[in-house]
Amino acid sequence: MSEVYASRRTRLRERCNAAGSTAALVSCPANVRYLAGAAPRGAVLLLGRSEDLLVCSGPPEDRPGEGRPDESLRVHSLPHAGGDPAVAAADLLTAQGGDSLALEEHHLTMVRHRELRSVAPRLRLADLGCAVEQLRVVKDEEEISCLRIGAEIADQALGELLESILVGRTERHLALELERRLVDHGADGPAFTTSVGTGPNSGRRGHRPTDRRVEEGDFLSVCLGAAYRGYRCEIGRTFVIGTSPADWQIELYDLVFAAQRAGRESLAPGVACRDVDRAARQILDSAGYADGLPALTGHGVGLEIEEDPQLTPAAMGKLDACVPVTVEPGVHLPGRGGVRIDDTLVVRPEADGGPELLTITTKELLAL
Amino acid sequence: MSEVYASRRTRLRERCNAAGSTAALVSCPANVRYLAGAAPRGAVLLLGRSEDLLVCSGPPEDRPGEGRPDESLRVHSLPHAGGDPAVAAADLLTAQGGDSLALEEHHLTMVRHRELRSVAPRLRLADLGCAVEQLRVVKDEEEISCLRIGAEIADQALGELLESILVGRTERHLALELERRLVDHGADGPAFTTSVGTGPNSGRRGHRPTDRRVEEGDFLSVCLGAAYRGYRCEIGRTFVIGTSPADWQIELYDLVFAAQRAGRESLAPGVACRDVDRAARQILDSAGYADGLPALTGHGVGLEIEEDPQLTPAAMGKLDACVPVTVEPGVHLPGRGGVRIDDTLVVRPEADGGPELLTITTKELLAL
Repeated sequence: MSEVYASRRTRLRERCNAAGSTAALVSCPANVRYLAGAAPRGAVLLLGRSEDLLVCSGPPEDRPGEGRPDESLRVHSLPHAGGDPAVAAADLLTAQGGDSLALEEHHLTMVRHRELRSVAPRLRLADLGCAVEQLRVVKDEEEISCLRIGAEIADQALGELLESILVGRTERHLALELERRLVDHGADGPAFTTSVGTGPNSGRRGHRPTDRRVEEGDFLSVCLGAAYRGYRCEIGRTFVIGTSPADWQIELYDLVFAAQRAGRESLAPGVACRDVDRAARQILDSAGYADGLPALTGHGVGLEIEEDPQLTPAAMGKLDACVPVTVEPGVHLPGRGGVRIDDTLVVRPEADGGPELLTITTKELLAL
Repeated sequence: MSEVYASRRTRLRERCNAAGSTAALVSCPANVRYLAGAAPRGAVLLLGRSEDLLVCSGPPEDRPGEGRPDESLRVHSLPHAGGDPAVAAADLLTAQGGDSLALEEHHLTMVRHRELRSVAPRLRLADLGCAVEQLRVVKDEEEISCLRIGAEIADQALGELLESILVGRTERHLALELERRLVDHGADGPAFTTSVGTGPNSGRRGHRPTDRRVEEGDFLSVCLGAAYRGYRCEIGRTFVIGTSPADWQIELYDLVFAAQRAGRESLAPGVACRDVDRAARQILDSAGYADGLPALTGHGVGLEIEEDPQLTPAAMGKLDACVPVTVEPGVHLPGRGGVRIDDTLVVRPEADGGPELLTITTKELLAL
C-alpha cells in the first residue's frame, strides 16, 4: 500500500509545484487519510521541501477502521497536547528552509491561519484549493473494493431488518438496530446517521429518526450505509407496511423507480453530471412534482459520504470511469409521505458492462 | 423561553457595541443554538443594527432534540440550496445600512471569510472571538435541569447494562447497547461516541470501542453521556469482571477514586481551575503515575461536551457558581489497562450544599 500513498503525494506535489508552491499543508481529515493512510485526530500532512511529515497532536493511536499511517512517512508527534499541528508544521517547514506553502483555505479557520502566519512570517502562503478533493474523485480498484464490501454489509443489515416485525417500532429504534447490524457484519461504523422515516416522514432526504411508530399502511423509507476501512457507501429503499399498498403508493413508487432507473442508466464515462440529474429529474418534473424536489439527484462517495461530483442541474464537469456515485431521486408529499430510492454505483464504460451496482437489495416495492 | 434568548442576545450586543462593532455574526452551531433556540444545519445568527435574523440555508425543520427557533426572531431562509447563510447575512446587513460586523474567526474558514468580504466590501470586519462561549460558561437553572435529566438517563442506561451478562461481549456491542438504552430512556442521542474499554484498553480516555471481548479478570471502563434538549453530560465508571479483583486492581482503583474525590471536593465558586486539577493530579503524581497522565482532569459541559472551563495545570481563571464540569482523572498502564472515574457536577456555594453531583451511579468498585 505504501507506494499508493507515495504516488498520491507525488501527484499532489506536482500540482503544487506547477502552481508555484514548493510545499503544501493538508488539514482536511479525509484528505490527510487519502495521502497518509490514516488521519489521527487533528493531524496534518506536510508535503515538505525535503521530506513529508505527518504532524500529530499526540502519539498516533491504533483505532479500528481508522487506518495506519503509511510506513514510508515520518510521524512527528507534538510533545504536549493542545498545540496546533498546522502551526507546528509551518514552523518545521521554516526550519527545513521552505519559503512557500499552499494551504487548504476552505478548511483552515481565520484564527489558525493567523497563528500559522505569526510563527512563520516569511512563508509565502497560497491556497491549495480543493486539489486533494479533485485527486480523490476517481478511485482505484482497492478503494472500490472497500466500497463494495461496505455496500454488502449495508445490504445484509437491511435484509435482516426486513425479516423482523416492524409495526409498532419507532423510527429511532429501527435506525439504532440497523447501525448495530452494520457493526455486527464488520463495518467500522455507520457511514452517516441512519435515516428511517415512516408515514408522513417517509421519502424525506436526510430525515432524522423520531419517536413515530411504524403503522399499517405506512410508507417506510430507510437510508443507511457502512463505513469500511474509511470508505462510505449509501443505500436507500422505500417499503410499504401491510398487505396491500394503496393506489397512490404504487403510482408514486413506480414513478420514483422510473426516475432512479433513468439516472442509473445514464451513468457512463464522459456524460455530463447535469445530464444524469436531468435524466432522473425530468421524469418527476413531467409527472407534476417539479416543486419541492431535492436540489440534488446524487453525489460522489468515498472517504466522505458526500464528495464530488455533485449530480445537480447546475453541475459542471463530466463523469469519469471508476467514479462511485449515488443515484437517489425522491418525492415527498407534505403530510402524506413519499418515496426515495438510492443506490451506490461505480461509473464503468459500456465495454466493461456499464455502471456497476454496489447496493443490490431489490428495488421491487415490498409490502412488509 | 423567548425572553431568555432575547436577553442572551442583548448581553452579546452590549459586548459587541463596547468593542466597537454595531453588528455580530454568530456561526458556531452551539452558539447559534444558545442565542436563537435552535441551530438548523448551516444556519447563522445575525445580530443586526435594526433587528436580529436567523439566516438558514433552507426552511427550518422540526427535528427531535434540535430545538425550535425563538419565536421573537425573524427567520430568513435562502431561496436556493447551496448558498452560504453567512455570506447572505453580510449582504442583508449592508442592506440594513450596517457598517461594521464582528465575526467568529475561530470558526469561519478563510474561504468563507473571503466570500463574505467580497459581497460586503464596505463592512468593517472584526473578530468576535469567543464572546458567546464565555456567555455560555455559567448556566441558568433551566440549562442545569436539562443536564440533570441527561445525567439521570445516562445513569439508567449504565445501571441496566450492569445487570446483563458482560463476559464474551465486545466493546463495540456494549457501546451500541448503551447508546440504544440512552435513546430508550428519552435522550436525543448519545452526547458523544460512547467509550467502552476492556482489559488493556480500560482506563484510556476517549478509547474507541474495538472488537475485543470482555474476559474474566478484566477491568471494564465505560464512558457515556446523554444529550437532552441539546445539553450534554458525561459519566465514566470502571468495573472489574469476575468474582474477586486482583490486588493491583484494588490499589489502582482506590488511588484513582481518591484523586477523583479530591477533585470533586475542591469544586467551589472562586477556586482556580488549575487548583481543581492539582487536587486530583497530585494524588496520582505522588503515587508515581506522573508520566502519562491525561493533560486534563475535567472540563465544562453544556451544549457541547467539551467547553470552557478546562481543568488543567496551565488553566487560567476561576470557577463560578452554576458552572457544570466533569471531574475525570484516570490512570492507564500500557498493556495492563487502568481506571477512570468521571462525574458531571455543578459548582455550587457551600451555603447551597457544595458541588451538586449529577451522575449518581455508585463509585464503589463493583465486581461484575
